[in-house]
Amino acid sequence: MSLIYFLDLTGTFVFAISGMLAAAEKRFDLFGAAVIAFVTAVGGGTIRDLLIGKTPVGWMKDLNYLICIASAVPITLLFKSYIQGLRRTMFLFDTIGIGLFTILGLKSTLALGLSPVVALMMGVVSAVFGGVLRDVLANEVPLIFRKEIYATACIIGGLSYLLLTKTGIEEDWVIFLTVMLVIAIRILAVWKGLSLPALGKKDAYKSDSGNKF
Amino acid sequence: MSLIYFLDLTGTFVFAISGMLAAAEKRFDLFGAAVIAFVTAVGGGTIRDLLIGKTPVGWMKDLNYLICIASAVPITLLFKSYIQGLRRTMFLFDTIGIGLFTILGLKSTLALGLSPVVALMMGVVSAVFGGVLRDVLANEVPLIFRKEIYATACIIGGLSYLLLTKTGIEEDWVIFLTVMLVIAIRILAVWKGLSLPALGKKDAYKSDSGNKF
Amino acid sequence: MSLIYFLDLTGTFVFAISGMLAAAEKRFDLFGAAVIAFVTAVGGGTIRDLLIGKTPVGWMKDLNYLICIASAVPITLLFKSYIQGLRRTMFLFDTIGIGLFTILGLKSTLALGLSPVVALMMGVVSAVFGGVLRDVLANEVPLIFRKEIYATACIIGGLSYLLLTKTGIEEDWVIFLTVMLVIAIRILAVWKGLSLPALGKKDAYKSDSGNKF
Repeated sequence: MSLIYFLDLTGTFVFAISGMLAAAEKRFDLFGAAVIAFVTAVGGGTIRDLLIGKTPVGWMKDLNYLICIASAVPITLLFKSYIQGLRRTMFLFDTIGIGLFTILGLKSTLALGLSPVVALMMGVVSAVFGGVLRDVLANEVPLIFRKEIYATACIIGGLSYLLLTKTGIEEDWVIFLTVMLVIAIRILAVWKGLSLPALGKKDAYKSDSGNKF
Repeated sequence: MSLIYFLDLTGTFVFAISGMLAAAEKRFDLFGAAVIAFVTAVGGGTIRDLLIGKTPVGWMKDLNYLICIASAVPITLLFKSYIQGLRRTMFLFDTIGIGLFTILGLKSTLALGLSPVVALMMGVVSAVFGGVLRDVLANEVPLIFRKEIYATACIIGGLSYLLLTKTGIEEDWVIFLTVMLVIAIRILAVWKGLSLPALGKKDAYKSDSGNKF
Repeated sequence: MSLIYFLDLTGTFVFAISGMLAAAEKRFDLFGAAVIAFVTAVGGGTIRDLLIGKTPVGWMKDLNYLICIASAVPITLLFKSYIQGLRRTMFLFDTIGIGLFTILGLKSTLALGLSPVVALMMGVVSAVFGGVLRDVLANEVPLIFRKEIYATACIIGGLSYLLLTKTGIEEDWVIFLTVMLVIAIRILAVWKGLSLPALGKKDAYKSDSGNKF
């Protein structure tokens, strides 16, 4: 088992746990929680596969992803308070996950002959749209539309991957450097409290006066 | 017209009515209600077809499904109070519907050579994700994530279908027995007030203290 | 560049601006706003492409759509109040957009040999489901399920296109007449305050008494 494959599965597992925790907050039942865990873990890659036309979608062809998610469900239920104490570890694997998912999404799009811009978009979709689906199913405004440098880290990571592959550096190194960059950006963002500026602040009080056309 | 095809269309019709009733509660206009009826009726099978790569999706190739939905719209409008009095009949056909949709979804996934686990998942998706889409479009938390043994009945039905087909029993009988089992589970669940346990109950009051990582 | 292609891109641009304005009202950050702009502009056509099985989806193969959306983002930020003053111009291009999107969606569905009814549905999906996705992602009940003759204008436009092409009139004229008809319907609807009747009004106060079965 290659390191990349192992980290991919680890990312899937951590995403599933994060989905379970979100479902518990909404007091979903076991079925609902399992759906949310599943969607958080593989939703981004599924949307990417649908858009680029790679069907049946990826997780249908490699049951290890399902096994990771299926084991995240009871593990979260049994060790919930312990897991919540592991915030830094979770943060780390979550960040490795989005870094890797960005790269893998980007590569499978390029492999179809689509343009680098589209590949970059599909990389970001792979990394963050599982979370968007999770929030939509939980009837929340998607978190990443409002908070933190999450998607930005993926965009910068994807750009760095595209540039570094052109330098001729070996791919394992490119992936390693890209994931390190994504981790660095997120740690910096959390540490400094960085986030993208919100739109529409200044005239929020005008919102009744006819913003629609 | 085979019995299975007839019951499939009946299920579609009953799902469309249930969508219309949900839309009326949200005071959608006629277009919105028709969309909700449509999505409730064929949304699950559509998601399955997209995921397994069977496009154009099923209802595009057999207009009888559209005719069932299109006739459910005026019928619900004209006979709304009468239909609401038919709760047991509706419950019965709705349950036959989810049982059949599970089996049909499962079969079309197996036919593509995908694994039984994935086929079982696609069976459940076919049966319940129309309702999930309905709730998402109506800006509600999906009902099946919180209530009743609905999805569980589909999962058990799907498992029973997979097991019974291995026994060599004729397929019509397998389908009949599976649908009977799904009906029995749902009647039992409603009668005994069964539902899956909700997650996160005990520490619901802690929810501000940092469940996110 | 043909006139139709130019108007298609203009429609995409105007849809993206309308998405940006909606995102600003919800105070999304720049990433969230760009996603909403993108989804509003090409979401309808993307859903159509997925359903009829034309993948990779359309905007992946012609970067001009992405360029239109990418330029709508800073333009809306810089000239927001000016754009809000251009309501009539925006209304006009938005209406030309939905008229054209209806026709283009309809044509690409017919081209696959699917029936005119399905083609009409896909035309309407192309025109209005970008807005539905925008509202779902912003955690709102889709506007078009409740207000105005928006979707109705698309349906009538699509029907008129189907009928007029049978008369043997040159296609450019058919498209021109159809878009004019859509514009006329919307102007009439806004002017007269027309909308489809909402369902369930009369017994709204009964909604607790058991509409579900």
